[in-house]
Amino acid sequence: METKTLAVQGMSCGHCKSSVEGALNQLDGVSSAEVNLEAGNVAVAYDNSKVTLAAMKEAIEEQGYDVEA
Amino acid sequence: METKTLAVQGMSCGHCKSSVEGALNQLDGVSSAEVNLEAGNVAVAYDNSKVTLAAMKEAIEEQGYDVEA
Repeated sequence: METKTLAVQGMSCGHCKSSVEGALNQLDGVSSAEVNLEAGNVAVAYDNSKVTLAAMKEAIEEQGYDVEA
Repeated sequence: METKTLAVQGMSCGHCKSSVEGALNQLDGVSSAEVNLEAGNVAVAYDNSKVTLAAMKEAIEEQGYDVEA
């Protein structure tokens, strides 16, 4: 299991938090996702044999947020 | 039909806008609700024989936002 914290721009409220966490949790291979609104990031634990960083970034971007490299 | 603009605190994003508009539109007697995020308010058109201002405020507050007098 890998863990990574992604910087995400534009998350402003609890709905944003839920959207991002929900999108990540729907990906096969993601075991947990925790948004920190104050820090503007999301900590993800995932199995890198099942899900890629690119897929996680795409899932966040589909919710309308920008992910920093 | 009456129209009124209510000042609402804490709406920060499109999800907030949808939550507040959706809660108001579910009330019988509300014909339209339009949130302005920048201004921090919601313009409501309603039939005051069917819905009260108090009920509209309560619907907004149930979504987690404060309504100013």
